[in-house]
Amino acid sequence: MALIVQKFGGTSVANCDKIRNVAKRVVKLAQFGNRMVVVLSAMAGETNRFVELAIQMQKLPDQREMDVLLSTGEQVTVALFAMAVRDEGVECVSLLGDQIKIVTDSVHTKARIKHIDSELINHHLDAGRIVVVAGFQGVTESGDITTLGRGGSDTTAVALAAALRADQCEIFTDVEGVYTTDPNVCDKARKIERISYDEMLELASLGAKVLDIRSVGLAKRYKVPVHVRSTFTETEGTWVVEEDKNMESMLVSGVTYNKHEARITITRVPDTPGIASRLFTPISEAGIVVDMIIQNTRSGNLTDMTFTVPRPDYDRAMKIVEGVARDIGAERVSGSKDIAKISIVGVGMRNHSGIANTMFGVLAREGINILMISTSEIKISCVIEEKYSELAVRALHDAFALDKDFVPLEQAN
Amino acid sequence: MALIVQKFGGTSVANCDKIRNVAKRVVKLAQFGNRMVVVLSAMAGETNRFVELAIQMQKLPDQREMDVLLSTGEQVTVALFAMAVRDEGVECVSLLGDQIKIVTDSVHTKARIKHIDSELINHHLDAGRIVVVAGFQGVTESGDITTLGRGGSDTTAVALAAALRADQCEIFTDVEGVYTTDPNVCDKARKIERISYDEMLELASLGAKVLDIRSVGLAKRYKVPVHVRSTFTETEGTWVVEEDKNMESMLVSGVTYNKHEARITITRVPDTPGIASRLFTPISEAGIVVDMIIQNTRSGNLTDMTFTVPRPDYDRAMKIVEGVARDIGAERVSGSKDIAKISIVGVGMRNHSGIANTMFGVLAREGINILMISTSEIKISCVIEEKYSELAVRALHDAFALDKDFVPLEQAN
Repeated sequence: MALIVQKFGGTSVANCDKIRNVAKRVVKLAQFGNRMVVVLSAMAGETNRFVELAIQMQKLPDQREMDVLLSTGEQVTVALFAMAVRDEGVECVSLLGDQIKIVTDSVHTKARIKHIDSELINHHLDAGRIVVVAGFQGVTESGDITTLGRGGSDTTAVALAAALRADQCEIFTDVEGVYTTDPNVCDKARKIERISYDEMLELASLGAKVLDIRSVGLAKRYKVPVHVRSTFTETEGTWVVEEDKNMESMLVSGVTYNKHEARITITRVPDTPGIASRLFTPISEAGIVVDMIIQNTRSGNLTDMTFTVPRPDYDRAMKIVEGVARDIGAERVSGSKDIAKISIVGVGMRNHSGIANTMFGVLAREGINILMISTSEIKISCVIEEKYSELAVRALHDAFALDKDFVPLEQAN
Repeated sequence: MALIVQKFGGTSVANCDKIRNVAKRVVKLAQFGNRMVVVLSAMAGETNRFVELAIQMQKLPDQREMDVLLSTGEQVTVALFAMAVRDEGVECVSLLGDQIKIVTDSVHTKARIKHIDSELINHHLDAGRIVVVAGFQGVTESGDITTLGRGGSDTTAVALAAALRADQCEIFTDVEGVYTTDPNVCDKARKIERISYDEMLELASLGAKVLDIRSVGLAKRYKVPVHVRSTFTETEGTWVVEEDKNMESMLVSGVTYNKHEARITITRVPDTPGIASRLFTPISEAGIVVDMIIQNTRSGNLTDMTFTVPRPDYDRAMKIVEGVARDIGAERVSGSKDIAKISIVGVGMRNHSGIANTMFGVLAREGINILMISTSEIKISCVIEEKYSELAVRALHDAFALDKDFVPLEQAN
């Protein structure tokens, strides 16, 4: 008898029929003797509907009240789900963030979970009930409703799995798992069977939307085995688990691309201490998040500095940088929105040299110029012109033989 | 500086524009220096939408989960309202049943309020905020969400007004107040300026839907002055208050009709002790609520018994009664759905005889046969054929001169 936490996203509970199907699926596992905790999102589209209503009331809606509003979405689905389960003749009880005491900080609309009280859930599980929990929501110490931000239901599920010491946490979504790359771009994309927390963290941070990055971090910290799979099939999905030997034998696990950034370059900056700080402090104060930063030493005491920002922030960032450039006597500021970041991720990189060279060689062979490079222990990212991004993804996917389940090291190198 | 509780029903907050209008109205009173507590219902139509969703999940939806579902309706309106008030530059905070601790019993979907904690509301009022409370909802001692049943938001408002010792409780609705009778039936119907709690209790129990009967009972018990008025005009409505001398000078305050009942007669019943109990126990066990009961003594030891039940329960009730009639040896069971109950209500009746005779005389003059009669201290009800009900209402309204604000006693008698 296992304790299983399952989370179903908005498309999985988009209407009454879908909710009923999910209920039947959960009931079956419960009837096999498993203790079932289910976490649900709001019906697909509801959150957007609420945001539109809120904007009609107040241009910048009050964040506390936004959370009061948004949290109703999940409340509706858990109530309907509990009815559907009971309609199958199985006991079920819905619980909200404040009932469980999913205590968060008070940063409304993107709160962080501080602790979870598992007592009430265990009480209902012990009584033989399926417990369905409203995802995405929590409560502050003083009793205000909070929400956890985009992807918050994933976080609820993993945090509950950790608090309850669940045997596994299954995240049901509208795709079959984590893929070696975007199947829309590369038809050889292959579903990954097992992936390490660290790789998944890199993939999530690079824009793979199948799993929220905070939930992966939580899963890693509490060693919660996470199974990402499809609501609409019975197929096994992708297991996100602790690293093992098999994973290391794969040099690269996935290729990602990200078209949501823009590049800004400031040329011939006097290379004196404090220059980076003078440049990035006003950008950060404007609430703009800088991703990659590259600094090249030039001849003399001059340097070039290039960095990326989210595309919607590009114009604001340019204005700030142009001001700073004048002040510090830089020669020129240039930039481009038409860039893409292509990344390869794999724990195998740690122990094998030459992966970066292979990547650079593949891009060169395709005539793709590399504008920026950034690396971590298990990731290499190259910024290239946007128009080459699909070509680059397919070429790298082929080069690292990601369509094969297992690749002998010598072949890839 | 007064403490005012205002309640707005579903048609008053049916969309964003209407919510904004209500917010402006409340803000104006707050800016005059009043402490404002606002109770809101769900947007018109939402509750029905939820019930339809629930029935799709479970034929007889679980009542606990029904409350989890239904209570989201009010949660949405209070959040949007708080945003609208803040958009006017005034501080506002929304509070839910469980946050305030509107503690109820655990009879889901029709819970009764046990007590209210006024501390949190007073805290926010002291801080200069408008407090908006989700109507219709409460929480059990063990933390489950409950709802108060139809008209529950009126009850929330009056109960809050009592707990906070508010100066007045204003119930905003889509009509201008309490009328001497239904203006759709009698164009001489006149808005009543002041009416006593007892009269309002009778009117509400007779089907006048402007104010929920439980809220009138609460208002009477805690002496809360209630002002029933329109959301869409500034006109004064009807004050429901303690009885005063002026009211007694009016013999009759209102005429009502009710077409939701059906009549069942059981003829020539052996008149022995325990017969009524043998008849009404199975009806009550079937969950059917009996309204009027009349027993006539016949010749010998036989009696006739007539009673009314809600029309939708008529067929079930007939089947039960026919069974009992056979067992107890009654001669015949008959009945009719085409009846109406016409009632006159007024505290003035207590001290003046002849009111009933006037009523019977008016009906006789119009050729309307009276099928049943039932009286209370301040009410006389007659059951007649349904087809005469509008005629009866207009004739009685004229006879008691209800279109006049004040009627000398001798004239009416």
